[in-house]
Amino acid sequence: MHAPPIENLIEQFAKLPGIGRKSAERLAFHILNMPKEYALDMARSLVEAKDKICFCEKCQNLTDVSPCAICNDTRREKSIICVVESPKDVIAIEKMREYRGLYHVLHGALSPMDGIGPDDLKISSLLERIATGEVEEVIMATNPNVSGEATAMYLCRLLKPLGVRVTRIAHGIPVGGDLEYADEVTLLRAMEGRREM
Amino acid sequence: MHAPPIENLIEQFAKLPGIGRKSAERLAFHILNMPKEYALDMARSLVEAKDKICFCEKCQNLTDVSPCAICNDTRREKSIICVVESPKDVIAIEKMREYRGLYHVLHGALSPMDGIGPDDLKISSLLERIATGEVEEVIMATNPNVSGEATAMYLCRLLKPLGVRVTRIAHGIPVGGDLEYADEVTLLRAMEGRREM
Repeated sequence: MHAPPIENLIEQFAKLPGIGRKSAERLAFHILNMPKEYALDMARSLVEAKDKICFCEKCQNLTDVSPCAICNDTRREKSIICVVESPKDVIAIEKMREYRGLYHVLHGALSPMDGIGPDDLKISSLLERIATGEVEEVIMATNPNVSGEATAMYLCRLLKPLGVRVTRIAHGIPVGGDLEYADEVTLLRAMEGRREM
Repeated sequence: MHAPPIENLIEQFAKLPGIGRKSAERLAFHILNMPKEYALDMARSLVEAKDKICFCEKCQNLTDVSPCAICNDTRREKSIICVVESPKDVIAIEKMREYRGLYHVLHGALSPMDGIGPDDLKISSLLERIATGEVEEVIMATNPNVSGEATAMYLCRLLKPLGVRVTRIAHGIPVGGDLEYADEVTLLRAMEGRREM
């Protein structure tokens, strides 16, 4: 019913995650109502992001310069690597402004059900980094769910024989959270992880 | 914290209506995870939509050929024009598959609070169409809210002296709706609009 160029644009928007047909229509009409420069800027950003962004040769994070700004930062501790599933996790930890070590981005987690095995993750490059002998501790900051735990366990078994310390981030009640609403597994983890006061 | 090309893409997505910073980040990372062809297709759709879509010289609907497919369709009744606020309203009425007349898209509604007056709407082109003498009835299908009603009233006063019949779509309880949950104004309209059975 729509003119083909409108229909095409709607279909492109509808391919995005979390955008249904109705939202895609709303976005397409928004673009059509805006000055042309606006659509051109968006088109340019799409192409540039794909053209300029690559994996950092060291930590595998998404970056426009390789090695990335974090790997190149001489003030950061080279002896600690924090292993995360995705670039978004790096951003989350960086926002904390406390962690001063390096990262390694796996780009996923082990999930046999979805056909994601060790070869689909950036594991070999992690092993290469450990092999240099510079690294003393690897912090597993994969997500606290089935695939994240499985990935942490798998990597732990690979890394420990290499003589490196492997740690896991603590699970427990979120700060500001309410005991009453915590699920049993979280509560169990919080009890197990209790510390002297 | 993100590499500049990623940050740019996030900012472009965040400019879209209903897309906040978090959703924009999710969309940007989705693009980065997809094959390059996918981003290029989307960029191309954006540019093509802006390049190829224009206003129909007759009904002012968005189209890639002017006059548009509906205005050019010889099987449609030229004597009835349905006046709507936006191209989306044309799509909604066309989905009904019952209306066989033409349309006129105002691209907005009168709203003095937002600084939208008669000159901001496609009214002069509507008057030109009436002036040809081909039109017998104009159906006001603007939205049943303050600005839609004001627009319908304003146009009615302009058009009636030209000797054309002006009608307004019925307001009432939506089909499948529940009397209990209808607001008073809708209920009042439904009572006023009652018909012999």
